[in-house]
Amino acid sequence: MSKPVYNFCAGPAMLPKEVMATAQQEFVNWNQQGCSVMEISHRSQDYLDVAYQAERDLRELMNIPDDYAVLFMHGGGRGQFASVPLNLLPENRVADYILTGSWSKSALTEAQRFGDVNIAAETYKKDGLGSVLPFEQWQLSKNAAYVHYCPNETVDGIEFDYIPETDKPLIADMSSCILSKEIDVSKFGLIYAGAQKNIGPSGLAIVIVRKDLIGKARAQTPSIFDYSVQLNSESMFNTPPTYAWYLAGLVFKWLKQQGGVKAIEQRNKEKAALLYQFIDNNAFYQNRVETRYRSKMNVPFYLKDENLNTAFLQDSKAQGLLALKGHRSVGGMRASIYNAMPLEGVQALVDFMQDFANKNG
Amino acid sequence: MSKPVYNFCAGPAMLPKEVMATAQQEFVNWNQQGCSVMEISHRSQDYLDVAYQAERDLRELMNIPDDYAVLFMHGGGRGQFASVPLNLLPENRVADYILTGSWSKSALTEAQRFGDVNIAAETYKKDGLGSVLPFEQWQLSKNAAYVHYCPNETVDGIEFDYIPETDKPLIADMSSCILSKEIDVSKFGLIYAGAQKNIGPSGLAIVIVRKDLIGKARAQTPSIFDYSVQLNSESMFNTPPTYAWYLAGLVFKWLKQQGGVKAIEQRNKEKAALLYQFIDNNAFYQNRVETRYRSKMNVPFYLKDENLNTAFLQDSKAQGLLALKGHRSVGGMRASIYNAMPLEGVQALVDFMQDFANKNG
Repeated sequence: MSKPVYNFCAGPAMLPKEVMATAQQEFVNWNQQGCSVMEISHRSQDYLDVAYQAERDLRELMNIPDDYAVLFMHGGGRGQFASVPLNLLPENRVADYILTGSWSKSALTEAQRFGDVNIAAETYKKDGLGSVLPFEQWQLSKNAAYVHYCPNETVDGIEFDYIPETDKPLIADMSSCILSKEIDVSKFGLIYAGAQKNIGPSGLAIVIVRKDLIGKARAQTPSIFDYSVQLNSESMFNTPPTYAWYLAGLVFKWLKQQGGVKAIEQRNKEKAALLYQFIDNNAFYQNRVETRYRSKMNVPFYLKDENLNTAFLQDSKAQGLLALKGHRSVGGMRASIYNAMPLEGVQALVDFMQDFANKNG
Repeated sequence: MSKPVYNFCAGPAMLPKEVMATAQQEFVNWNQQGCSVMEISHRSQDYLDVAYQAERDLRELMNIPDDYAVLFMHGGGRGQFASVPLNLLPENRVADYILTGSWSKSALTEAQRFGDVNIAAETYKKDGLGSVLPFEQWQLSKNAAYVHYCPNETVDGIEFDYIPETDKPLIADMSSCILSKEIDVSKFGLIYAGAQKNIGPSGLAIVIVRKDLIGKARAQTPSIFDYSVQLNSESMFNTPPTYAWYLAGLVFKWLKQQGGVKAIEQRNKEKAALLYQFIDNNAFYQNRVETRYRSKMNVPFYLKDENLNTAFLQDSKAQGLLALKGHRSVGGMRASIYNAMPLEGVQALVDFMQDFANKNG
């Protein structure tokens, strides 16, 4: 193709070009074995080397303390919506959920099936803009087993700029922001992420959990969702999604080559600044999130004239700018600019948006 | 590589060479989109076309009646060990489990966590050989919610040569025999299979379930394991393992090109006959399963002199014959010869085994 293609899909999202090139090159003859890495036993030493290396690289990238387990699990983020209460919410306790958008709401809905859940903060708008209820207004339970929140709302484009301080285990759905910026893992009880945004293909979830929280799963927890079972079997109680795990490992290596999370965070800031500044300076487009809470990963925006939506999507696709349609629940447009999206991709988007505004303004 | 490599791994297993070649060729530019099929939204029309086509092809291959749902789920076969009782075993009922080896035992163990389970048939040996307890000796419950069995035991190399007749819904773990021979789906209440043997890469489970059995899941079933939720969302309640689903679709297309299940069944019979006949005619090797119940997919065998095991594995690997080590729970050797294994691969194995016996006998 003559012109580069940039894929702004919210997930399954684009993976780094270099990772995909490597994976393609060794697709049918991995490690000079004469077969694919997806065709070898998860219990073979060759595969274990891949799996362990991926965990080591992730630990290094996120500076994960030794008293935290790293689990590679089936079921994606929604699997964890169930796994978290099944493992961490005893039947006589309550869990606090913080609502900030679509995904924290879905996590709450699933948790309510398993036990007593308190909505400590409802979704919140400030002056008509998406925002986060101020922390001092949260109605946290005195005896909560944990506090659950979603630091980055993929659909709503809302991102926390702080880590809530609570004396309860803090549980974070980091599906769309993991590895996008430096965080202090020790402030969390558990972090989970569906892989298909910043890590790899769909079908894999990564769980980072303080080990002392493990071992209290309910009797009827499906074994593959039991953190204790998965910890004791090194995430191989059943056959893991081996190819997704391998690709995640390639992404971790790539991230290290980019300079690690600190470097990618800087790049992510530049990418987001470029796009938000353009939107703010162009009356043709609008973002509807309070500046402070704007996501650096998912940038939802609206055309002032929504009648132009179809033309915008057609023209952008023709220019090799893919998957800009907003989530069906909120409409408009959305540019997901995860780690794998280069600055040039955001620049190409801004250039297109300027052209489109000029032609249709 | 000058010499062809044949991979006898029990799972994740080899996929058809033609499928892997296609997948590699379009890995980074699928359907002329400028990106990978693993990088597009599961809700895009392009992906839905892939997903629906895969289901249609599977329905055609297995002649699945319209009153059966086909679900593409997370969690592999072990996920279904929990999903089956969660969805089909009411709290006041009992489920019958038929034990024939390692996997049916594991299914039983998981089901016991969720309810009342009756072992209707224990594992059984006949004259010291692996076998199946005769049907007329099964202790089936009068009021069972279902009868669960494993038609092909991957570890033990035991395969049913009949479908049990029962007036209760019959549930079959077909992970290692699905699509390997013609079956009458209408005789089953539910069929499930982890993908990583005869379908695609690990991380995907396929469930074929009579629709009238759906809708009675326990209140605390994780949503992604609820057949009703998955049916109503066309297996897209959460992001499915999209790349595995795509590869499964390529395998289904390949199977159709091979002449469908009837043709592959004939080839599988030839492959198995070649290997078993060789073993039976060579005192150097031994299979320990009653002839009638020998698996056509997984052929476990032992060297008469087990001191030669290491040499056998080293030499076979050097000849490009991979992953012949038996399951750690039973030792010895195992050749898994799923649909993707060509007759030439089995011939190469037999030739090697003859050479090895000549040299070491």
